[in-house]
Amino acid sequence: MSVSMEKIVSLCKRRGFIFQSSGIYGGINACYDYGPLGVELKNNVKAFWWKSMVYDNDNVVGLDAAILMHPKVWEASGHVAGFTDPLVDCKVCKQRFREDEIDPEKLKIRQCPKCGNKGSLTEARQFNLMFKTNMGPVEDSSSQIYLRPETAQGIYVNYKNVLETSRQKIPFGIAQIGKAFRNEITPGNFVFRTREFEQMEMQYFVKPGNDQEAFEEWKEKRKNWYRALGIRQENLRFHEHQGDELAHYAKAAFDIQYNYPIGWKELEGIHNRTDFDLTRHQEYSGKDLTYFDDVNRERFIPYIVETSAGVDRTLLTCLVDGYAEEELENETRTVLRLAPHVAPVKAAVFPLVKKDGMPEMARKIHQELKKLFNVFYDETGAVGRRYRRQDEAGTPFCITVDSQSLQDDTVTLRDRDSMEQERLPIAGLGHELEKKIRTGE
Amino acid sequence: MSVSMEKIVSLCKRRGFIFQSSGIYGGINACYDYGPLGVELKNNVKAFWWKSMVYDNDNVVGLDAAILMHPKVWEASGHVAGFTDPLVDCKVCKQRFREDEIDPEKLKIRQCPKCGNKGSLTEARQFNLMFKTNMGPVEDSSSQIYLRPETAQGIYVNYKNVLETSRQKIPFGIAQIGKAFRNEITPGNFVFRTREFEQMEMQYFVKPGNDQEAFEEWKEKRKNWYRALGIRQENLRFHEHQGDELAHYAKAAFDIQYNYPIGWKELEGIHNRTDFDLTRHQEYSGKDLTYFDDVNRERFIPYIVETSAGVDRTLLTCLVDGYAEEELENETRTVLRLAPHVAPVKAAVFPLVKKDGMPEMARKIHQELKKLFNVFYDETGAVGRRYRRQDEAGTPFCITVDSQSLQDDTVTLRDRDSMEQERLPIAGLGHELEKKIRTGE
Repeated sequence: MSVSMEKIVSLCKRRGFIFQSSGIYGGINACYDYGPLGVELKNNVKAFWWKSMVYDNDNVVGLDAAILMHPKVWEASGHVAGFTDPLVDCKVCKQRFREDEIDPEKLKIRQCPKCGNKGSLTEARQFNLMFKTNMGPVEDSSSQIYLRPETAQGIYVNYKNVLETSRQKIPFGIAQIGKAFRNEITPGNFVFRTREFEQMEMQYFVKPGNDQEAFEEWKEKRKNWYRALGIRQENLRFHEHQGDELAHYAKAAFDIQYNYPIGWKELEGIHNRTDFDLTRHQEYSGKDLTYFDDVNRERFIPYIVETSAGVDRTLLTCLVDGYAEEELENETRTVLRLAPHVAPVKAAVFPLVKKDGMPEMARKIHQELKKLFNVFYDETGAVGRRYRRQDEAGTPFCITVDSQSLQDDTVTLRDRDSMEQERLPIAGLGHELEKKIRTGE
Repeated sequence: MSVSMEKIVSLCKRRGFIFQSSGIYGGINACYDYGPLGVELKNNVKAFWWKSMVYDNDNVVGLDAAILMHPKVWEASGHVAGFTDPLVDCKVCKQRFREDEIDPEKLKIRQCPKCGNKGSLTEARQFNLMFKTNMGPVEDSSSQIYLRPETAQGIYVNYKNVLETSRQKIPFGIAQIGKAFRNEITPGNFVFRTREFEQMEMQYFVKPGNDQEAFEEWKEKRKNWYRALGIRQENLRFHEHQGDELAHYAKAAFDIQYNYPIGWKELEGIHNRTDFDLTRHQEYSGKDLTYFDDVNRERFIPYIVETSAGVDRTLLTCLVDGYAEEELENETRTVLRLAPHVAPVKAAVFPLVKKDGMPEMARKIHQELKKLFNVFYDETGAVGRRYRRQDEAGTPFCITVDSQSLQDDTVTLRDRDSMEQERLPIAGLGHELEKKIRTGE
């Protein structure tokens, strides 16, 4: 496996998975739009996460908090003071750089990496990565708010609301999917690091002392989830944060890393955040955020184990892990081996040729199947080319109506990965496909 | 039907549908967080819309464009110049007001509606409702961008990308669900008008001349959709925009209005936007946005028919339309008559009492059913109170395991609306419920 990022970007653009945002205006840096196939893949990834977290765990409930929050939230969380990168300016060419990304030799003599002037770099200042805006009709510091740089805080400030309304007891979790924004100085690598992105986070509230056990449990559950998503095990590994890597709020942290074309990188973080967050919010809000355990008659601030994944990054992982180019007899085929349950289109229906009643029969099958899942109909061009188009889109199954179909009410079912075909009766086809699609879960 | 908005707000808070955002910090004006029940209802509404638009129409595909777009988009769309409200300041108390909301008598003598001083109001200036922020490390006008005030423009700038990748031909539509932001001066009425909100928009591209037909078609389809959503027909009506009401870009516009506690208000807009949007984007981007019809060998800029609905407003409509208080023998019950297919929880499973093996049997049923849909288990308190809790949450079905269940493997199935119970075998229960849930669609 050694697909380049360029091939992924090219496939995404060519097939309508992902476009550069505002492309007709030359684009906007580090923002992307999901096209017809991309949005289906993304929705499937999100739905599978939601099912795995909320529906499969009786003690996890969902939440959807606003992107715009009270500015005090970000003081309590530490983002106002500490969510920064060190920036230096070149006094000559006016360019800005992240100090920690300048070659140390050049930095020593304050030499600009762009214009080459020596002694031209200013001292570093701390640049906050939160996007700022103003709410209400007055534009001054009193109305300044932020676009949330993470979804987690929306869960912490609602934890008492959820407790009071959902009949949960500790240990319990709150799961959320939503957008977050970071004014990254050096975003890049396609949708790996963007300024607007989507997170899938679950915060698990436990009694102090039970945190390590919960941490281990979720670490395993989350790694298994990627396997259920269809990601190959050899491309996944744990990376433990040690020493300086460990955030100030974390007692323990593991990344699930994936073997991207750009190397092993974080796909998801699992953190033992201790009682840091709730303690801070209790302090800054003046509200009681303790939990009362009515069995053991004790009161405490819960510890939190967090599982934090990126939607865009997970989608990228599906694309990278599934991408393959295969040498066939006379051609190279590009195929996207997505797990059937996340594939944008589950099946494509073709008439072998555009005559003799085949299109009519194929359309009828298409109409029936699309009551069950997303199905595509195509009658244009040679059937071989239609197969290739679906291979590239990750469609796991193709159904072809041929002359035999007209006689015995059967069709061929072609498998994307093996390219093998079997003949099946039209009656019961939907049921058969549903079984095959569900296998991945 | 005459539920007050206060009762809806109270139910939402009490049962965890909707909370004020950042509540522990005193809240942030006109932003709301969706709790465990709210997020399920919202996801169901969105999924039903997506299915109705994208899967049920072969010529409609999905898109998910970024919130942050190139600033030129908003010059082309007209938002930079014209998306404004007239604001006046009081020179004495420093308060700001929307000029069009001040009592005309007071306005005539420039009398402040708050402090009462005469002659204290400034002349009106135009206040732009787009939230502004800066992207990148430099904070000046060159880096200024906006939070999108509507999702529609993300579709227009991608229309060629979609055409090139999706094999669609005119007429075809692009559907999108996503957040938008408006710095409203006077938001209010709970989630009816908020500063952060979510839209469900579909833009339908047609040949000029076929626009009126498409307009009529979508008008009917969209009104029918609300009926399929379970909204009572007598609470829905069309309102035609006439004269000044009609936006500068629109040839024709109808609102679907709902009879809210605050009166008949817009729930969705259906607009014939002509070629205004694509013509403007062609002009501002310098890119060719014409469409070539290869059957009739002609080139034109498509007309656009838009259907634009609010997710939050639709959810509010479900709550208002479904809310009822019923006088029973000894009590008043609050019930939320949501259509089963959008209800947050489809069924609740109870053991009649917490002994004799009933909890074990009920849990087993719960485990089986939750493979199919969202199910809640509850064994706490009298069964009558448990029914009431589910009535308020909109759960259409309650399943109770009683002593007879232990003998003959049957349960009672209680209907939320009629409160009638029937006895059903446990085998096949899931299938039976699936049928009942699907009826609404």
